[in-house]
Amino acid sequence: MIDVQKKRNSRENILKEAAVLFKNKGYSGTSMRELAQHMGVEAAGLYNHIQNKAEILQEICFSVAREFNSNIEELELRSCTCMEKLETLLKGHIRVIIQMQDQVAVANSEWKSLDLKSQTEYKRLRNLYELKIREIVEEGIEDGEFRNINSSIVMYTLLSSIRWIELWYKEERGISEAELQNSVLSILMNGLNAR
Amino acid sequence: MIDVQKKRNSRENILKEAAVLFKNKGYSGTSMRELAQHMGVEAAGLYNHIQNKAEILQEICFSVAREFNSNIEELELRSCTCMEKLETLLKGHIRVIIQMQDQVAVANSEWKSLDLKSQTEYKRLRNLYELKIREIVEEGIEDGEFRNINSSIVMYTLLSSIRWIELWYKEERGISEAELQNSVLSILMNGLNAR
Repeated sequence: MIDVQKKRNSRENILKEAAVLFKNKGYSGTSMRELAQHMGVEAAGLYNHIQNKAEILQEICFSVAREFNSNIEELELRSCTCMEKLETLLKGHIRVIIQMQDQVAVANSEWKSLDLKSQTEYKRLRNLYELKIREIVEEGIEDGEFRNINSSIVMYTLLSSIRWIELWYKEERGISEAELQNSVLSILMNGLNAR
Repeated sequence: MIDVQKKRNSRENILKEAAVLFKNKGYSGTSMRELAQHMGVEAAGLYNHIQNKAEILQEICFSVAREFNSNIEELELRSCTCMEKLETLLKGHIRVIIQMQDQVAVANSEWKSLDLKSQTEYKRLRNLYELKIREIVEEGIEDGEFRNINSSIVMYTLLSSIRWIELWYKEERGISEAELQNSVLSILMNGLNAR
């Protein structure tokens, strides 16, 4: 049991440190040798936990996609207004950006380096997520909660409006996760509100 | 006169076609030879109009920066509410994105490939632009026009919320420049409005 735990911890650690390097030097600009050096271990040791660099990128991209999509699944279980749904989803999105900052940056900039099959699956998950947002927006427009604006324009504006956070957020800036969520969401939700 | 005109046209054409290639294959992934092939001319011919690839990137990045900053200069000449100022500036920003789509994409993704002196100047212009937006936001908060939100958060949210347009906009989508401007601006301006 302890060994399994140790191994998983170490695999998690490899993924975490790889995300830092991929973010700063790019996926193609980082070798397994550099990753090992960065972690202070033997390169051969990495291969006890991970097959190759491509597997690391896959794990990073899909861990981010899973996190975003689990926010949607949680939402399905609740019944509330479209405004509350959208607010919960976007707050969750900002939380994922802050808590998985390096991984989110790598997924956003490097998903095109995934193998073709993984790229297709990654795009499928992203499309599902975008579709869910468009559905909530359209439902809210129909109910008269949201002002009547093309739902694709709304969806892209919302998702784009929080992209800067992954590059900007640092604890040292003295702005908490909650302040950031509330400030950004107050612009977006008031902007959509038809009432 | 005609020769000068021809030369300028040709230089403009090189910059335009280079922006297409840099956008699709990256600055470092494009050679002068490929640019010549893409344009159907001899590589040697390019050098009558342009010194080297670095000069092309410089011209692209600074033409975009000049365009954004000329929107600010126009604004200085008018007196109007902060809401009107911000709306004018962001509409102008979207217009530049649409009218110089390839150049804007290249400037945004490749400015770090500029030589150090040009990078410094490019960052100075970008900072000026961001500062101007923060100033308008702060003035609007003071005047009670805008809701009281951290001006850096507002500035980044506004600029980030329109970044998707450079990748998404195509005439074939059947959404005009004006509809796009009005839809996005109606979310953002209503979102800031305190009245």
